Amino acid sequence: MASNFGDRIGQAVKSKNTPLIVGIDPVYSRLPVQIREHRSMNDENDIGAAVDAMFEFCTKVVRIVAPLVPAVKINIAYFEKYLWEGVETYYSLVSEADALGVETIGDVKRGDIGHTAVSYAKAHLENPEFAEMEDIITPDAITVNGFAGTDGIVPFADVANEQGKGIFVWVRASNPSAAAIQDFAGADGKMMYEVLAEQVGEIAAQSKRIGSEGYSNIGMVVGGTAPEQAKKLRKKFEKVWFLVPGYGSQGATAQDCVRFCNDDGLGALINASRSIIYAYEKDEYKEQFGDNWEKCIEQATIDAKVEISKAMS
Amino acid sequence: MASNFGDRIGQAVKSKNTPLIVGIDPVYSRLPVQIREHRSMNDENDIGAAVDAMFEFCTKVVRIVAPLVPAVKINIAYFEKYLWEGVETYYSLVSEADALGVETIGDVKRGDIGHTAVSYAKAHLENPEFAEMEDIITPDAITVNGFAGTDGIVPFADVANEQGKGIFVWVRASNPSAAAIQDFAGADGKMMYEVLAEQVGEIAAQSKRIGSEGYSNIGMVVGGTAPEQAKKLRKKFEKVWFLVPGYGSQGATAQDCVRFCNDDGLGALINASRSIIYAYEKDEYKEQFGDNWEKCIEQATIDAKVEISKAMS
Repeated sequence: MASNFGDRIGQAVKSKNTPLIVGIDPVYSRLPVQIREHRSMNDENDIGAAVDAMFEFCTKVVRIVAPLVPAVKINIAYFEKYLWEGVETYYSLVSEADALGVETIGDVKRGDIGHTAVSYAKAHLENPEFAEMEDIITPDAITVNGFAGTDGIVPFADVANEQGKGIFVWVRASNPSAAAIQDFAGADGKMMYEVLAEQVGEIAAQSKRIGSEGYSNIGMVVGGTAPEQAKKLRKKFEKVWFLVPGYGSQGATAQDCVRFCNDDGLGALINASRSIIYAYEKDEYKEQFGDNWEKCIEQATIDAKVEISKAMS
Repeated sequence: MASNFGDRIGQAVKSKNTPLIVGIDPVYSRLPVQIREHRSMNDENDIGAAVDAMFEFCTKVVRIVAPLVPAVKINIAYFEKYLWEGVETYYSLVSEADALGVETIGDVKRGDIGHTAVSYAKAHLENPEFAEMEDIITPDAITVNGFAGTDGIVPFADVANEQGKGIFVWVRASNPSAAAIQDFAGADGKMMYEVLAEQVGEIAAQSKRIGSEGYSNIGMVVGGTAPEQAKKLRKKFEKVWFLVPGYGSQGATAQDCVRFCNDDGLGALINASRSIIYAYEKDEYKEQFGDNWEKCIEQATIDAKVEISKAMS
């Protein structure tokens, strides 16, 4: 039987001794100049060259961070921009990361109902059984948009269960305008995101989704820039994993984010994307490592781990 | 300058004399036996055979319905299930439909914030400029998940504007559990979907998005199974196009759906998917046309047009 994702991610957090995960949001124009100037990858309008450059960069990033963090979150939007060639690159990257032993989270934010939701779930969580695609591995978990309520969440949750995988339902975003929708308050003061969180929490608490460590394979995405919500949610959903974006470039501090962790250090994955993968753009790292962009990324990962570790203690 | 999508879809509705549009949700196991038994397409586990069968079926469906309806809505989830090969098939199908002169709506329900939203918008609305992809056309409009509020909607709306295209923001779903989230009511009785609709309505009303006929290129997806909301929304957002799923297999009647139309017959696109594209499974059509599945689809389209036309008068 496939192992439980809630257990697996917990073991990974313990073994890497950090809730930090690295988000992969590759933008061609920000790739290291060594890659962008390579003669086989220096033309963004040649789709083959562009996706080769993305793959070269991303696999190197994953190799650097895989020994340091429990998971990488790969954002499919930056690959979809290159149409099917980009989608192929996305799946290849997930498969590479999987082979390196790091947990993989596909940031795909898919959401729909009924058969459509099942099709999305299969696309993103089922390891393909098609001839000649046997080497392709889909992510250990994906993000899901739960706007349609339980009808839109359960199909993803059920495919995740079958496959020994997990989902993180987007409950509270990290952007300013999210408040108008997600913090919309009912007559009793309860907010919309809390209603959604309760629905996700109920699905997450079903016994078939709980691993041997007590955590569920159904988690929630909750923005780190909304720390006032963190304590409330943490207390209410003790055995749910929170995926927390917003640390680093989006303005949430380590202090904000660690409020999502339980006392044992488990229960939250704190994501940093641009602040780590583009560390070579920052003076502090350039001064230390010159044009060794890989060293910059490695050091930024270590620095973020230390900062989070301090905030936790 | 590119034409306005709001105008274009209005002209198409007028020239085809119906608000009916056909949704393409292809499932291999339901394809006509003539396709599934063809020796080059009879193995679903061979991804090439599977996507060839899907493409064969879908292009034939589009050829049948293009002279009859203003638009086809192509659901990418059913293609994504076949990974990048399916995504390539999706774009090829959109391009084929475009060449047949029917408006194309990509049902992609993408939604995220900031750079990620822009990347999705480019993937799905920008005609690619990559070498060797010049023949690929992206849809005239796509569906968008607006859960993150305006920050998640404006990036899509702006790319749509640049490209002479449109978006339909998912405001109220047609599934039962949607009510718990989308009908969640505030202290004054206003529901969450109404707040979201107001945000979309504000963006839609910006002058740069309005065509010469007064309609916006920013529309809303509102389920036909919630007709009590129809009149309210129609009255409030006079010049917004509503994309109305749920007619046919999902249980909304023609009467329910036509409430979304303005008095001049414009302003709504009423979508039928399975009840039309799988018409050859129904006894009433089998009896009439035997194994001529294309005739069954054609007749079901005509019948649905008549039914809607009657409901409107």
